[in-house]
This record gives sequence, C-alpha cells and structure tokens, in this order.
Amino acid sequence: MTTVSVVCGGVGAARFLRALAGIHPAEATIGVVNTGDDTVMHGLSISPDIDTITYTLAGAIDPDRGWGLREETWRAMDALGRFVAVRPCGSSAAPTWFNLGDQDLATHFYRTARLREGATLTEVTAEIAAAWGVPQQLVPMSNERVTTMVTLLDEGIEVPFQEYFVHRHHSVPVAAVRFDGVNEATLTPAALAAFNESEVVVIAPSNPLVSIAPIRALAGVDAVLSARRDSVVAISPIVGGAALKGPADRMLEELGHEASVVGVARLYTEIAATLVIDPVDAHLSSAIEAAGMRVVVTPSVMSTADIGHELARQTLAAAR
Amino acid sequence: MTTVSVVCGGVGAARFLRALAGIHPAEATIGVVNTGDDTVMHGLSISPDIDTITYTLAGAIDPDRGWGLREETWRAMDALGRFVAVRPCGSSAAPTWFNLGDQDLATHFYRTARLREGATLTEVTAEIAAAWGVPQQLVPMSNERVTTMVTLLDEGIEVPFQEYFVHRHHSVPVAAVRFDGVNEATLTPAALAAFNESEVVVIAPSNPLVSIAPIRALAGVDAVLSARRDSVVAISPIVGGAALKGPADRMLEELGHEASVVGVARLYTEIAATLVIDPVDAHLSSAIEAAGMRVVVTPSVMSTADIGHELARQTLAAAR
Repeated sequence: MTTVSVVCGGVGAARFLRALAGIHPAEATIGVVNTGDDTVMHGLSISPDIDTITYTLAGAIDPDRGWGLREETWRAMDALGRFVAVRPCGSSAAPTWFNLGDQDLATHFYRTARLREGATLTEVTAEIAAAWGVPQQLVPMSNERVTTMVTLLDEGIEVPFQEYFVHRHHSVPVAAVRFDGVNEATLTPAALAAFNESEVVVIAPSNPLVSIAPIRALAGVDAVLSARRDSVVAISPIVGGAALKGPADRMLEELGHEASVVGVARLYTEIAATLVIDPVDAHLSSAIEAAGMRVVVTPSVMSTADIGHELARQTLAAAR
Repeated sequence: MTTVSVVCGGVGAARFLRALAGIHPAEATIGVVNTGDDTVMHGLSISPDIDTITYTLAGAIDPDRGWGLREETWRAMDALGRFVAVRPCGSSAAPTWFNLGDQDLATHFYRTARLREGATLTEVTAEIAAAWGVPQQLVPMSNERVTTMVTLLDEGIEVPFQEYFVHRHHSVPVAAVRFDGVNEATLTPAALAAFNESEVVVIAPSNPLVSIAPIRALAGVDAVLSARRDSVVAISPIVGGAALKGPADRMLEELGHEASVVGVARLYTEIAATLVIDPVDAHLSSAIEAAGMRVVVTPSVMSTADIGHELARQTLAAAR
C-alpha cells in the first residue's frame, strides 16, 4: 500500500487530510504536524495544529470556526474574566483572548499530564488521536519546544505566534519570523521515517512561512525532502493571490516574497518537484515552471467533498 | 478593632468564617488556611481548602455539595473520559475521580499561571479572594508545598491526601498521616503576623489530624500559639462522638485518639485554653477540664445563621 506523508499546518492541512481519506487509506497516511505555534496557557500545554487536525479527522471540529469542537461551551473562559481585574501590572495570567472551550480543555489536560509524566509529544499525540478514533498517524515535528516568534513591524517587538495570530487577530504587519529553539530541537524519529519511507510526500496548503517553515527549519528536513524531490508535491495555499484562510498572503508580501503561486513556487522549488494550483492561477504556470517546478492545475478550494477528493487524487498522481 | 485569626481547614472553617462575618467585621478577620491537601491535577495547581473558603465567603459555594460553585457544569470532566481508555499502564493522567467544574477551572487557571510567573501562594490567594469580592484576609499556611500523605491500612501504601479523601471517598482505614515537605516549608509571614498580633485566635471546627495538624507541623506554630494560649479558642469538630463532615471521627480512632470532645481536647490543650463544645457533649466537660482546657457549651452545629452567629459570639467571648 502506498504510504503518503503530509507536511501539515492547521486548518488547510486538516481539510486536505480529510479529503485524502476519501480516496486513500487513512491507515497509510501520516501527518507530520507543525508545533511551532504550540503554547502554554494557564499552565496547560496546547498544540493548536495537532488539535485542529485531530478534531477535523474525528468529525468533531466546529465547521464554522474551523478550530475547536462543535457544540462547545465556554464556561471556564467566561469565568476567567473576573481575574483580569485583580491581575497585577505586568502579569499575563488570565489570558481571556485565547479561547479554550470546556470540552477542548480535556485534551489539554491529558496532554499536560502525560508530558509531566515524561511521555514524549509523539506518544501523547498518538494517544489523543486514538482517543478520538483517528486512524491516521499524526506525528509532531519535534518532541522539543520550538516557538515561532513574530516581530511586529509597528510595535517593534517580538512576540510568540499566538500573540500575533490570536491576540492581534493577525491584522498587524510582520517584520520577521524566527523559530526559537529550533537549533536545539530535532525532527521526531517518526517524522524522519515518514519522510524517508513514504512513497509520496505532500506539502499541505498551509502557510509556507509559519506552518511549513518551522518543520523545514529543523536540521535535515530540507535535505531529506530535496533528495526525494520528484515524489514531493506541494499544494499552493495561495489562490488568486489570496490566502484561503489566515494571513499567508500579507505575510508573504511583508517578508519580501510574492503573494502568488509563483512566490510559493520559489519557496518550495528546492524540496518539491510539483506545485498544485487552482485554475484561476493557470496563467502563471510558465512562471512556476521558470522557478523550477512542474505544475498541476486542478480546483484546490475544497468547498465540496468531491473537489477535495479530486484535489487529493491529482496530488497523489502528480507524485507517482 | 479586635482582630481575629482563624486556623482553617475546609468546609467547617468556611462555615465558621461565614458565621463570624455576621457578628464581627470581615476586614478584621484573617483565615490561615491549610494547604496540605493542595494538589496538582492536569498540571493545574489546586488549593481545595482555600477555594472552599473563598467560594463560601463569596456566597458562591454549592450549598448541597459544600464544595465547588453553584450552578456549575462538568463539560471538561465529562470530556476527559475518552482519554482513560488510551492512557498507558502506569499513567495517572485523566483522573476523572477528582471533579473540577467548568467555572471552578478558571480559579485554578489563574492560580497556576500566577505561580508560574513567580508569584507566591500568599499573593495569589489574596488576588483570588479579591476577584471574588471576599473582604476577609485569607492566608495560606505556607508558600512552599507541603503534602499530607496518608498510609492506608489495608493496602499498605502511602498516598497523597486527595487519593484517600476523594478517590477512595475517605472510606478506608488509615494507619498513619505525615506531612511531606513540612521541614523544608515555613509558615507564611502573614500567618505568623496573624498568630502574633490578633487579639483572638480561633481553631475552626476542622479535622484536627489532617486540616489543623499540617499547620501545626510547621516550625514555630505550636510555640507561638502556646505562648498566647489564653486567647486561643478551639471549636470541636466532633459532636456527640461523630464528625459533622468527613472522616475525623474514624481517623481519630484509627490513629489512637478518642473520637470525642475529650480526644479533641487532648490534641489541643497545649495550644488552646478553651474548647467550645455542643450541649450534647456537656456531660464530658469535666473530662475536658481534666485534660487542661476550659469548656464553653453552646450549640455548634451551624444549621441556621442564628446558631452560627451565637457560636461565633460565644467563641470570641471565651477568648477575651
């Protein structure tokens, strides 16, 4: 059975994995997931991208928000409000801007307790996926903490990713991105095995600069993907010059790239032979080829299950 | 204004403090609270006795359970259940036996985050009391961790207090109690000041062996109370040979004491001049006096506000 590895951020990757499961066995699918936007809130270890993928594949994701659980309640968050007034100056306790639903909390409780017991994030991620009945293998990029740090242009300060993404609604311009701790961290053995042994590697339609880049920043990742470049296929997260979700388009421009499929191709050409783009971008095919990538044109906005299945089918076909 | 310090465990102390507030200014009341049954669950720092007192004085306690918040929901706890099945052998993650309500969680979130920021438990306890609008000064016995450890007679193992009290519903016999870490811990400066400077010290009707004893086990506490013994008044938690709540009666017997007001007197005679007992125990007055304590007889089961107020009035009067 062909094994497919998917290099994953959050929502876009989750939706691609869900689509892939419609045409390829989930048991032969491995998601290698970004943990650069992991955070600790209230002492709880939170892995937003892993959770988004787990909940999506479990059919439990809230379809409107794209994150968190459906039929969620917010009693703990609501109750946190009373502490904001008593928090001393300089304290960041009681962060009411990072919403954690009541049911979702149980996932963070379990992760936190297991990590405190000495389990690796790889082990805990597999246990949480099993608890949710997710048959895909989900693997964190690293067992060590890597923290995506974002320098905000106007404020001139560097903040952890969630401070930019959630607290500031990713609405402020970015001057730089850095992956704190990445030189001390290593790619998990399971992720390395996935990249070495899978017949196909797909780079999911995730933000190249803050979802895929943290994984690539780990020692050896670009080398192992470059060495098997022909069977690596990337799906552009930029369609018609815009990000499907999140700040990828603005961020590309702010950091000196082109907010287009061509800009994406220039970022991925070293490690992937093929770029999958939507028909609205077909006129840019020759520029992508000039950047060194083959082009596959197929609808890539997964607005229906059929479109998702066809996107997954074309993506796998491009690698074989 | 007369300042009153109350040496506190959980529910009994909370109810006495509430009664006291009816006849004595809350601003001139200091609760020094046991933290020996503090625990960490899911990575969250939990102080059950402090919370029970805070919620009671805020009028937010669930009146039937005696702990936790009224109109509470249990969504996070319910969601934790799915992780029990995937937990590896030997792991104690996903402890579904320790109920934490959704709104209650916010208190633990705040405490955990503040402690991680380097705040002392004294500071955090005051902030949480302020957030709940509690005018009494609530002071933890120690800023350092002291863990009440209970040796279970039948199982022959030593477990943290909550494993005995909650997990085993305090229904198993006890062979020993020990306060782990007490020699490395110190009485908080605020508690020491309260014991030195208050005109009256009341020992609340709490379990002498696992609520009051951890406080007494801290260096200097018995000495400072003994030195002012005449103005220290204890209220017996044993009425008619039985504990009003919890396992104090069985525990007294199991650990070689008498489960009666006389047994209580023998435990407190060194540090308190007076014992307040219920009329049902009036016939034991001479035995209490033989143990070295004066006796005040007044209804001590706080079943109505009036009884509570009269108990508080008689208790303060006994010390003056």
